[in-house]
Amino acid sequence: MKALLGGKGANLAEMTNIGLPVPPGLTITTEACSAYYENGGKLPEAIMNEVKEYLEVVEKQAGKKFGDLENPLLVSVRSGASISMPGMMDTVLNLGLNEETVVSVAKNTNNERFAYDAYRRFIQMFSDVVLEIPKHEFEDILTEQKKEQGVDFDQELSVDSLKALIQKYKKLVLDESGKPFPSDPLEQLSLAIDAVFRSWNNDRAIIYRNLNKISHDIGTAVNVQSMVFGNMGNDSGTGVAFTRNPSTGENLLYGEFLTNAQGEDVVAGIRTPRPISELKDEMPEIYKQFTEIANMLEQKYQDMQDIEFTIERGRLYMLQTRNGKRTAQASVRVAYEMANEGLITKEQAIMMVEPDQLNQLLHRQIDPNAELNVIAKGLPASPGAASGHVVFDSDEAEFLGKGGKKVLLVRTETTPDDIHGIIVSQGILTSRGGMTSHAAVVARGMGKPCVCGCESLVVDYNKKEITVNNYKIKEGDVVSIDGATGRVILGEVPMKDPEMAEEYINILKWADEFKKLTVRANADTPEDARKARMFGATGIGLVRTEHMFMGQDRLPHVQKMILAETVDERKDALEIILPMQKEDFYGILKEMEGFPVTIRLLDPPLHEFLPNLEDLLVETTTLKLTGADPEKLEEKMTLLKKAKNLHEFNPMLGHRGCRLGITYNEIYEMQIRAIHMANAELTQEGIKVYPEIEIPLTVDASEMRFFKAMIERVAQEVMEESGVNIEYKIGTMIEMPRAVLVADELAELCDFFSFGTNDLTQTTFGFSRDDSQGKFLQHYIEMKLLKEDPFIAIDRRGVGKMMLLAVEGGRRTKPDLEIGICGEHGGEPSSVEFCHEIGLNFVSCSPYRVPIARLAAARAAINDKKN
Amino acid sequence: MKALLGGKGANLAEMTNIGLPVPPGLTITTEACSAYYENGGKLPEAIMNEVKEYLEVVEKQAGKKFGDLENPLLVSVRSGASISMPGMMDTVLNLGLNEETVVSVAKNTNNERFAYDAYRRFIQMFSDVVLEIPKHEFEDILTEQKKEQGVDFDQELSVDSLKALIQKYKKLVLDESGKPFPSDPLEQLSLAIDAVFRSWNNDRAIIYRNLNKISHDIGTAVNVQSMVFGNMGNDSGTGVAFTRNPSTGENLLYGEFLTNAQGEDVVAGIRTPRPISELKDEMPEIYKQFTEIANMLEQKYQDMQDIEFTIERGRLYMLQTRNGKRTAQASVRVAYEMANEGLITKEQAIMMVEPDQLNQLLHRQIDPNAELNVIAKGLPASPGAASGHVVFDSDEAEFLGKGGKKVLLVRTETTPDDIHGIIVSQGILTSRGGMTSHAAVVARGMGKPCVCGCESLVVDYNKKEITVNNYKIKEGDVVSIDGATGRVILGEVPMKDPEMAEEYINILKWADEFKKLTVRANADTPEDARKARMFGATGIGLVRTEHMFMGQDRLPHVQKMILAETVDERKDALEIILPMQKEDFYGILKEMEGFPVTIRLLDPPLHEFLPNLEDLLVETTTLKLTGADPEKLEEKMTLLKKAKNLHEFNPMLGHRGCRLGITYNEIYEMQIRAIHMANAELTQEGIKVYPEIEIPLTVDASEMRFFKAMIERVAQEVMEESGVNIEYKIGTMIEMPRAVLVADELAELCDFFSFGTNDLTQTTFGFSRDDSQGKFLQHYIEMKLLKEDPFIAIDRRGVGKMMLLAVEGGRRTKPDLEIGICGEHGGEPSSVEFCHEIGLNFVSCSPYRVPIARLAAARAAINDKKN
Repeated sequence: MKALLGGKGANLAEMTNIGLPVPPGLTITTEACSAYYENGGKLPEAIMNEVKEYLEVVEKQAGKKFGDLENPLLVSVRSGASISMPGMMDTVLNLGLNEETVVSVAKNTNNERFAYDAYRRFIQMFSDVVLEIPKHEFEDILTEQKKEQGVDFDQELSVDSLKALIQKYKKLVLDESGKPFPSDPLEQLSLAIDAVFRSWNNDRAIIYRNLNKISHDIGTAVNVQSMVFGNMGNDSGTGVAFTRNPSTGENLLYGEFLTNAQGEDVVAGIRTPRPISELKDEMPEIYKQFTEIANMLEQKYQDMQDIEFTIERGRLYMLQTRNGKRTAQASVRVAYEMANEGLITKEQAIMMVEPDQLNQLLHRQIDPNAELNVIAKGLPASPGAASGHVVFDSDEAEFLGKGGKKVLLVRTETTPDDIHGIIVSQGILTSRGGMTSHAAVVARGMGKPCVCGCESLVVDYNKKEITVNNYKIKEGDVVSIDGATGRVILGEVPMKDPEMAEEYINILKWADEFKKLTVRANADTPEDARKARMFGATGIGLVRTEHMFMGQDRLPHVQKMILAETVDERKDALEIILPMQKEDFYGILKEMEGFPVTIRLLDPPLHEFLPNLEDLLVETTTLKLTGADPEKLEEKMTLLKKAKNLHEFNPMLGHRGCRLGITYNEIYEMQIRAIHMANAELTQEGIKVYPEIEIPLTVDASEMRFFKAMIERVAQEVMEESGVNIEYKIGTMIEMPRAVLVADELAELCDFFSFGTNDLTQTTFGFSRDDSQGKFLQHYIEMKLLKEDPFIAIDRRGVGKMMLLAVEGGRRTKPDLEIGICGEHGGEPSSVEFCHEIGLNFVSCSPYRVPIARLAAARAAINDKKN
Repeated sequence: MKALLGGKGANLAEMTNIGLPVPPGLTITTEACSAYYENGGKLPEAIMNEVKEYLEVVEKQAGKKFGDLENPLLVSVRSGASISMPGMMDTVLNLGLNEETVVSVAKNTNNERFAYDAYRRFIQMFSDVVLEIPKHEFEDILTEQKKEQGVDFDQELSVDSLKALIQKYKKLVLDESGKPFPSDPLEQLSLAIDAVFRSWNNDRAIIYRNLNKISHDIGTAVNVQSMVFGNMGNDSGTGVAFTRNPSTGENLLYGEFLTNAQGEDVVAGIRTPRPISELKDEMPEIYKQFTEIANMLEQKYQDMQDIEFTIERGRLYMLQTRNGKRTAQASVRVAYEMANEGLITKEQAIMMVEPDQLNQLLHRQIDPNAELNVIAKGLPASPGAASGHVVFDSDEAEFLGKGGKKVLLVRTETTPDDIHGIIVSQGILTSRGGMTSHAAVVARGMGKPCVCGCESLVVDYNKKEITVNNYKIKEGDVVSIDGATGRVILGEVPMKDPEMAEEYINILKWADEFKKLTVRANADTPEDARKARMFGATGIGLVRTEHMFMGQDRLPHVQKMILAETVDERKDALEIILPMQKEDFYGILKEMEGFPVTIRLLDPPLHEFLPNLEDLLVETTTLKLTGADPEKLEEKMTLLKKAKNLHEFNPMLGHRGCRLGITYNEIYEMQIRAIHMANAELTQEGIKVYPEIEIPLTVDASEMRFFKAMIERVAQEVMEESGVNIEYKIGTMIEMPRAVLVADELAELCDFFSFGTNDLTQTTFGFSRDDSQGKFLQHYIEMKLLKEDPFIAIDRRGVGKMMLLAVEGGRRTKPDLEIGICGEHGGEPSSVEFCHEIGLNFVSCSPYRVPIARLAAARAAINDKKN
């Protein structure tokens, strides 16, 4: 009935139909709007006659009469197209007031001030939207009146002032329109209806419809509804209630009320509202009726309701009901309990919890009641709250952190060099970089709070201080961050610990019953792997071997390997790294017994393992000029030379991924050998493991052929050496557009594909994730050139098309090819949904996002069934 | 007949069939090979009988007899499969020699040394390939013999030494094989034929066939051909001739001959050969026969022939004919004249000239006869030769160059900051960067010689010297480069000037008759545009507006604009640049009257207009430590701060292209206004111009919508201001994979697309063109992982697929969408061919490559018609 009654009208009718006591009213249909325009923009008399007729019904239902001196009916008039539309006339309240009825209202509410203020507001609103007299002219008079009375705020105006104001308003109306302000309620009504219909064709509404391709013919309805007042004595009142506790989810009516009051009184805070439970003693009948209605509404909407009500002279009126907002915790509990109560199905319960909400439940949060001194806001990069002493350097952080001090690492941005500093820090705060910057990715992987891209921070490493707006923060000062909102707060803040409630665990179990996608985790250590299993991951989708190279015991050897002048020197260094890598893989594979573990061979450019080029430039220049330490200068010069040699203009498009394995194939061979050796050892120990060796950054089948031969040759060698038969899979990342285009050829050589959607997004858009955020991507989103940050949710129209091409290409050659995703998108709900839609086999994300992915995967599967 | 006779056999038969006097011979078919294997790897007697039978025919034709003591027939035996195959037995020469026949040969040739040397070689060759006695054992005996006689070279061995050697060889054969060396010519022949068939199934041949998917069943043929000798007296001789001059193309027999000589004598250089024209006097009959044959061969093969011949006792034998190699100049002239002579069609003439050859004709070349001290080799980045005094700094180069000195700019790599240095230099030499590095692209654009990526050069800016192998080159030393080959030469070298011959111009005119693609040029100045028209460009496909920003008179204002703190400051700077830009566009558009000019709005990241970040770091550190010049320090610190701010990890994927127009839309608006103003002015002057405004780096239709609105609004403003109605087109570059994926949506908003295949290659592969070359791309090509450098020729399997997707997408929405290419590939023949194949409308390349593109486009169209 929406087309005929408009959105609001249909809603009112529905509430009435299910037996809710809503204030009586009537709706003038959209057909009347057409009639209005056919009549040359004048309200046809026939319609007004009908309105009068139905108004009598309303009067009867309300027990009041329009213009009555005893108990006058006041109404609201609202427009209501089938699509809500800005620019159209919105609302006139308290229509029906005039010099006589206002007296009755004052008497009935026993509140003269209320009555005259309502009258004054009515004149102002009516004159603005119906008579089209500029609003500011009334505001000017109001300001003058306040000055005259010597008060600052509207609510301080006395009854006399209000009465004076009303006279001044009426004079203004007469001056401006040439006619006195209409006092006949029926005339007021007819003018208001006319104004609603007229507003359908005002400029703003027409432009809006053109822009949004809405037909100009559908017209608007008009809703006329009787006003009710909660301040008509002690048998009246007003309140707001949730059908369950929106904070904890407990199934108990939750809310507050005030007797003899209007909704505004609750907001103004003059009187303290009382808990809804006390209404039981105060008005037992009303309370009983209200609880029944609350139940009925939950049944009807199959969700927790947020209800506004008013009691007028012992009669309960429902003003509004809607699905209630709730905390993450409440969301899970409500869903779980409603399903257990039989009110909804398991599917519905799953659909009721937003996957992103789960995120909050696993991290410490700032006490929502705490007073905070928020000094800046960055990107909410990794949820959870942290407080710590500011440190600007990772070595310093490690020193202090290991000494037991709580530190917060603050950097313009982080690099893999900072890993040891990040590990010991409570949280990370950066002034540059986006949601997928190094700091953000690593922090999410570790489940550590992080705020990044906080551009208003000016970090000065030399002075060891941060300037932000008018604050200066020195090293050692305590700062807190809220990784869920991006807030940066001065000083320590009170925290709340997370709980993994029974409802939470059970909702996820239900999710697993429905989801089609397997959910794996990205993990680089046995500890991560353990965490991943705890969160319900059934495999590791990405082991980043480079993180192992960063360990303090390996880095010197890794650097030696990089600085090697000959292949032999390099091999010597790799000999030392080999047993360490083998142990790394042994640990992870063992932890994941029975589940697949995808191990990606070395990916980042080698310069990431050397000190920063810019730092080296400054250091060597300084050493040269001071002449202080010739030996150190020489050492630094060697590093500088190599760093310059390895320097790339665009490292993201440079010498990395399997390109390293092509030019330095001894590195890849060492890693492959380490995987096979760990596999052989575990197999010998009777532990069933499923390693999957993954080649990154492939662009051509020739690369895959090269590495496949290497993997098989080394496997043969290891099997001969160990006497153990080993099994493994071979696959490739799909992260460059060219890999997508030759997916059919790659599939011939692969057991699996895994999408690296970060890189694929970078190359598809030509957006560097480290550079685009904070430089131009925000502009794109603010200017609505892009709907979303494609590094957060998969860009379906571009990157998504690429993925679909690769899936089609790969499965054309190998129909049972296993395909997954291990980019950051693997833990983002809408992206997980997309992965389900295009038929992937698994998603992989950081351990902390595994529950989110499980829920999102289930929701996608349920949605799929519905369609 | 190739399947039956093999490649060589078929060739010999063909030559005989067209009446050429080739030395008589016979071919044993591939069917005999099958029979050989069916017979258990033994030569069936029936075949040998047939061979004997046909051998008699050969004997009759040759006027010699196998094993005859007077005039013995010697033959060569060669394998000949239908596909040439490494690993199989190749050739045995002089078969038929033994202790008796060698005496006759000595007598007949009047050259005992020749006869015994031939015999010695025959034994060695036969023993190696037929008897399978290791070659090195013969070499050892030979070395010993030389030592014994006290000589260094084979040809110094005396007749007696040769006779002794033959006996030692025979003893070795007896010891190794247990049998004496066969002296019966028929036995020699039968053993040789057996060896050829046997070699079909040796390991190397089998592996080769497996690798190349050649059937093992096709078998090989055997060719037995009589030997002829040019050293049998003064009625004998040997020579080589081209049917036309291979250096100039002149239609005149060109070559040389020697009487009473073998081909080896010509090579050995002991006697000086005489010009072929003198054969006319020496042997008029033979000369007449030879010229007739030469004509016949040109008729037959419809190309210039390179012919080897021998005269034995007054009889002419043709040993080989093939299409002759020739210089670029000859290539064009031969093609043009042959077509004019009616020997070939215009199409054939066009197909006869390789487009890349044209490149040589437009540039100065090093005199091919000069002696050169080549000290290094880099990439042949831009053709032409140049000599100049080495300069390491562009300011210095400009200073010296404007002073009239010839300078050669040597840098590790160049940046847009070096433009003024490049302009005044004779050529550019860099130690880093590939064929599409900045230096290479700019140099090609200017038609200036360039060698880049010359990694063996160690350039030390501080010492102002280059170390290369053992040479040190100081600033001011003269060095030459050859941009066509990549050679770097010490000192000045003699040069040859280019000529644009009539034939050249006409061949290109013919090309224009056939080609379907329009050929435009990339040009940034009116001078470039003039050059482009001269070379036959019918439009400008790419005006890079950023090159204009680099002018010495603009750069300060451009920097001011970049350093601006507010939009107003930026607008002030832009106000100054506007009239300059307008003049730029005015000049180019006017020069290209009647033709389209595609103007791309600002593309590179802004930091390219500021000094280098690394230099600034060193400068500021130095200034800080010395404390010498606080004012300068402050100035540099400001620049450093901005440079750091603009610094990007991956500028190629960063804040550039239309992203600049989104964030600093006042820059784009200024450029758009300048274009419209120039258009209006020219239109007013009655000059018909066709500007096309092009948006770079688009990834979404929303960007295009934004700029289209801006272009149309500013056009409206300019038309109102000027009172002139202007026309223009709007289009986008397609250079990011996402633009390809949304090509259908972009086409709705565009009049044209232009592929930026450099960027598209970079993002499709994830290869930075500046980093990949010299780091890993060479490895890929050396290891055959990629067939070609995708930055040189379009990668059809990857980037090509992308292009096809965009063409299909764009034309689906707008069937008449104009599509072209303006990347570096637009002047590369195989890429031009691809552009033709996928139905593009135009290619655009640097002016100097326009002729190449015209020819390549014609060849593509002709090929197309043929298929």
